[in-house]
Amino acid sequence: MIAVISGGMDSAALLWGLKEGGIPFLCTRQLEAVSFYYGQRHRTELNYASDQCFYLGVEHTIVDISDVGRHLSGSALTDPSVPVPHGHYEDESMKQTVVPNRNAIMLNIAAGIALARGHYAIAAAVHSGDHAIYPDCRPAFMDALQETIRIAMDRPAFNVLAPFVGISKTDIVRDYGSRVNYSLTWSCYEGGEQHCGECGTCVERIEAFADSNTEDPTDYQ
Amino acid sequence: MIAVISGGMDSAALLWGLKEGGIPFLCTRQLEAVSFYYGQRHRTELNYASDQCFYLGVEHTIVDISDVGRHLSGSALTDPSVPVPHGHYEDESMKQTVVPNRNAIMLNIAAGIALARGHYAIAAAVHSGDHAIYPDCRPAFMDALQETIRIAMDRPAFNVLAPFVGISKTDIVRDYGSRVNYSLTWSCYEGGEQHCGECGTCVERIEAFADSNTEDPTDYQ
Repeated sequence: MIAVISGGMDSAALLWGLKEGGIPFLCTRQLEAVSFYYGQRHRTELNYASDQCFYLGVEHTIVDISDVGRHLSGSALTDPSVPVPHGHYEDESMKQTVVPNRNAIMLNIAAGIALARGHYAIAAAVHSGDHAIYPDCRPAFMDALQETIRIAMDRPAFNVLAPFVGISKTDIVRDYGSRVNYSLTWSCYEGGEQHCGECGTCVERIEAFADSNTEDPTDYQ
Repeated sequence: MIAVISGGMDSAALLWGLKEGGIPFLCTRQLEAVSFYYGQRHRTELNYASDQCFYLGVEHTIVDISDVGRHLSGSALTDPSVPVPHGHYEDESMKQTVVPNRNAIMLNIAAGIALARGHYAIAAAVHSGDHAIYPDCRPAFMDALQETIRIAMDRPAFNVLAPFVGISKTDIVRDYGSRVNYSLTWSCYEGGEQHCGECGTCVERIEAFADSNTEDPTDYQ
């Protein structure tokens, strides 16, 4: 199994669940993690991804697809000329954070690496809160992707797993919050020393801890 | 429209057809070409792809995904420790040239670039001779990929075109041979100054010209 992780909260819960058996029916003894440098404004989240993997004893591979990101310009996540939008995640302004076809690209690469290394599944931490603005986080996408990968690699039993696709970020924190080490996660789109507390993902982070009555270990600016 | 091209014969026919209207129903005034450096043993084919684009007046982008290729090791096309197999394309030995999930990765990146640049279609030059050893060249794959991309980018009208998927390499040369500039194409897996004439793709190249009674402009070693 290869878990695709970003260094954020949802990936951390996914990784913990797969490693420690915290997600029903999804426990694997052969777990690796893969992250992508696609030209993000900063590499902070990748450092946190590595820290979380080291903490859980999971091998971590970072794949550099920054030249791809360079050609997918126009997103606030990769294009320095587009400001990071502040506010709530469902807002229209957050569409500026869409990187065209990002999940399909990253998950297909992960599937190729999985096959090359003898794995028969990949897992992603997409959740219901992503659906509004990111079409490549919806259940229909994950199903279509699995079918395409099975055909592409002639592996009818290959699985694309998205255990959180039907639940919210708050649900994930409520279910896993007491056991996941959230101090080793990074959400902020800005590249500061601390979480800014104002960008879309910071707002989501704050709300997920508050709404689930879970202690937030984060130092905000 | 973005044509994904390799620098080989089939891509050249695709590009010519899309540019000059030689493929029924597939003519576009907004044509670009994208190629990938995925860690091939040599970049010769990419130089030929650029030459072909310059010849036809099509803008050409080369995307560097060599770090992806590094992790998809074990193929004779990317791994220097695996010898290039000689012989016929349908042979068992040619499976050593499979790069796991390569087409899904490249076509999904092309789709993302298409969206970023305002295009609504991508095209690939896969043909029936590829089906035996490359599952990601079959019609079922192209259909599944189109569906996944439409969902991923929320573009129900996005098209993944594979006009040659039902015909052979020989058929392509027979139909387009007199008009495509095949002297600006490269097939050989080896990295020599001339085509080796012995590796799988060289054998295919020689046969396609011979079987279609078309003059072969290639100098073989």
